[in-house]
Amino acid sequence: MISLDPFFNPRSIALVGAAHTEIKLGGVVLKNLLKFRGEVFPVNPKYNELMEIKAYPVIKALPHSVDLAVVMRPAPEVPAILRELKGRAKCVIIVSSGFAEAGETGLQEEVKRTGREIGVRIIGPNCMGIYDPYKRLDTFFLSYERLKRPKRGNVAVVSQSGGVMTALFSAIRAANIGISKAVGYGNAVDVDESDLYDYLSGDSRTDVVVSYIESVADGRKFIARAKALSERKPLIVLKAGKGGSGQEAAFSHTGRLAGRYEVFRSILKEFGLREANDFEELIDATKALSHQGVPRFPSPPLGNGGAARRVLIITNGGGSGVLAADECMRQGLEVTEVRKDKKEGLRQVFPVFFSINNPVDLTAQVTDEDYKRVLDELRDDYDGFLIIALPNIPGITEDLAGLAKSFRESTRKPMVFHVTEGGISARLTVLLEKARIPVYSSPEGAVRGLKALLR
Amino acid sequence: MISLDPFFNPRSIALVGAAHTEIKLGGVVLKNLLKFRGEVFPVNPKYNELMEIKAYPVIKALPHSVDLAVVMRPAPEVPAILRELKGRAKCVIIVSSGFAEAGETGLQEEVKRTGREIGVRIIGPNCMGIYDPYKRLDTFFLSYERLKRPKRGNVAVVSQSGGVMTALFSAIRAANIGISKAVGYGNAVDVDESDLYDYLSGDSRTDVVVSYIESVADGRKFIARAKALSERKPLIVLKAGKGGSGQEAAFSHTGRLAGRYEVFRSILKEFGLREANDFEELIDATKALSHQGVPRFPSPPLGNGGAARRVLIITNGGGSGVLAADECMRQGLEVTEVRKDKKEGLRQVFPVFFSINNPVDLTAQVTDEDYKRVLDELRDDYDGFLIIALPNIPGITEDLAGLAKSFRESTRKPMVFHVTEGGISARLTVLLEKARIPVYSSPEGAVRGLKALLR
Repeated sequence: MISLDPFFNPRSIALVGAAHTEIKLGGVVLKNLLKFRGEVFPVNPKYNELMEIKAYPVIKALPHSVDLAVVMRPAPEVPAILRELKGRAKCVIIVSSGFAEAGETGLQEEVKRTGREIGVRIIGPNCMGIYDPYKRLDTFFLSYERLKRPKRGNVAVVSQSGGVMTALFSAIRAANIGISKAVGYGNAVDVDESDLYDYLSGDSRTDVVVSYIESVADGRKFIARAKALSERKPLIVLKAGKGGSGQEAAFSHTGRLAGRYEVFRSILKEFGLREANDFEELIDATKALSHQGVPRFPSPPLGNGGAARRVLIITNGGGSGVLAADECMRQGLEVTEVRKDKKEGLRQVFPVFFSINNPVDLTAQVTDEDYKRVLDELRDDYDGFLIIALPNIPGITEDLAGLAKSFRESTRKPMVFHVTEGGISARLTVLLEKARIPVYSSPEGAVRGLKALLR
Repeated sequence: MISLDPFFNPRSIALVGAAHTEIKLGGVVLKNLLKFRGEVFPVNPKYNELMEIKAYPVIKALPHSVDLAVVMRPAPEVPAILRELKGRAKCVIIVSSGFAEAGETGLQEEVKRTGREIGVRIIGPNCMGIYDPYKRLDTFFLSYERLKRPKRGNVAVVSQSGGVMTALFSAIRAANIGISKAVGYGNAVDVDESDLYDYLSGDSRTDVVVSYIESVADGRKFIARAKALSERKPLIVLKAGKGGSGQEAAFSHTGRLAGRYEVFRSILKEFGLREANDFEELIDATKALSHQGVPRFPSPPLGNGGAARRVLIITNGGGSGVLAADECMRQGLEVTEVRKDKKEGLRQVFPVFFSINNPVDLTAQVTDEDYKRVLDELRDDYDGFLIIALPNIPGITEDLAGLAKSFRESTRKPMVFHVTEGGISARLTVLLEKARIPVYSSPEGAVRGLKALLR
């Protein structure tokens, strides 16, 4: 089997169906590919030059074989294009739609068969293809104006759906997460989620993999590859088509059966695979794992026999602490009481109106040092730390980020923040996230992030 | 009983504990009160003038009695201050903390008793007080730099907790919601959530009431007032302290018992009161109700015997449609099939690759007119409409907002949008929300919004 490497590290790319204007999708992709630092060969019979680079009338006129061909011609032409690509391309991304998702299963079968016969790997059809901010590789048929790309980072996004990919990009940018690669694989006649897991497992730039799935063709393969990937780095699956109308919609979207969700879910659980229940949970968990998922230092020993679920909440707003405690309960995390002796000790040093329970409520009178004092005192009693800093009061300064960073470095334990806007909020958030401590705008989001780290 | 009106429509305000500098909380509040258009009298024995207005050494030196007094002196001084206010103020906001929440139940009792004896109404102690953007009335002890205020609108926010109030402000601003009034009532020795419901029930600027509650002192009163309010305008309750550690934290935060959450919840349900399960649901529902909750025109007749739950999802991204359908299922909304005859009719006019199920998937080839065609054809078959517009494609223009607006005006049925960023996203969102159609950044958020409207 040919490796997937030419998809991700091509030296040369042919664009079959390139256009001269961005009004056409073939022009949008050409413009995006011009950012790429290797060779790019537009194929178009009507032009000698497209966007100021030489164009080729037909595939066989290309100066040499290419690593990657991107195909954007109408569906009925695709089988013939594939045959022309025989011996001239190692990997092919078929962006065109009009296959199984539109009822054209025969045409799709022909593409699949042809791909095998001529010995190329295929991503698609009916797909977005690949975006890699490090390689400046971008086959998405959306301009940067229409779809803002996330910054560079360590999260790989694998999505069966192009639309969900755009929604994920939007959410990922809002959460200030960076990505290593994004792959939209559409109808998956050849390369599917499992193959991509395999590849990403060995990708040094990827620390976390996010996978949006509507349907899985080969359940056994999926489980084996997902498990193998999960043993090396966190994989989070968001499964759509959970029942009834959702399942039907998933079928008409990519032409693959969604399968019974309950079965899928119980299998994920059995094999210890991570599943996000919805979009927000996916993003919250991804953010946490992107920052603290792959330890930069050895893992901490688990507290109580492997069940690392004891959470300490430190807050300067009573109500927000209560909401966080409620969400911990819903998520199965334990907001265990502060040990009696420690409680007495802290009471000695704090004003009477500080509440030394869990959540520890340091009230609006808090200073940075108060957070530190509580953390230092209780560091060994908890598995994870949720810090709420409502930054609207004078006692909280940017120094809090430094204190949190030192705590993380010395304890190596999971820590997340909930910070609202106003005051020094923006600056504090930048400093915390630079120190790999994720910041959430809601108490519930912070709990979901911490949960992903305490798994 | 004295009405609450002087709290919300004061002509004159005394600030007991005013300070000359914003480094002190009494200076922050004074500065915020200077925006108010009525008379403001700072009380401080050490200065003749504070922030360029005349100050008074003691309460009895005030030129005349005031509608509202705001008290910011240390807790032990408060009972004496109240006695001085006898006959000189109708309503008092006690901002100071250091009462039941800090174990000082005796002092709190004294405040309560004194208030009754001298015949004033009290909000607080341990509270934020009132913010009203229309009246420019602001007793919050946070500068605008530290806490950005939401714009003017029709949502009243009632919060037992000041910290949660700041978090709500942040979320409300992010959701582009406007507020009519915000009241932080803290330990509630006199005015509590029920009294505020009563008042807001008759407030013409308020169309929706959001209420964050940790504990309720008088359950019967709460139910009666909440029910009365709900009959006039939507009330959404977020109850914190749902169990275990959350309940304990709620107690130490305001010194009132949280009570058994299960009981509270079942009572809300029995009396048909709205409850949000978490912060995000609260904001999503509030946004929808703020736009479409109080019909500007008569309510539509309910479709099938009062159970208006039939949702039509129209999308241009298959995956996002699937996620929305999944969330509908979780939320108990019905994504009912498109009627056979209508399906046939639409198939005649649309390309084969459009998927005429529910969700209706118009794919990336969609135009504004396609949305309209589906809406017009199916308008009578559904109770609510969820439109997904991934705006990264050329076929979607600003005209979509106009089409949606016309549809809403002629059908009067609930409609929400899910729009991601990029392309014409920002402009489209502004136009839709101007037409009172709420826009959500996630499919799940849009479903939660629609659910609030289909109740």
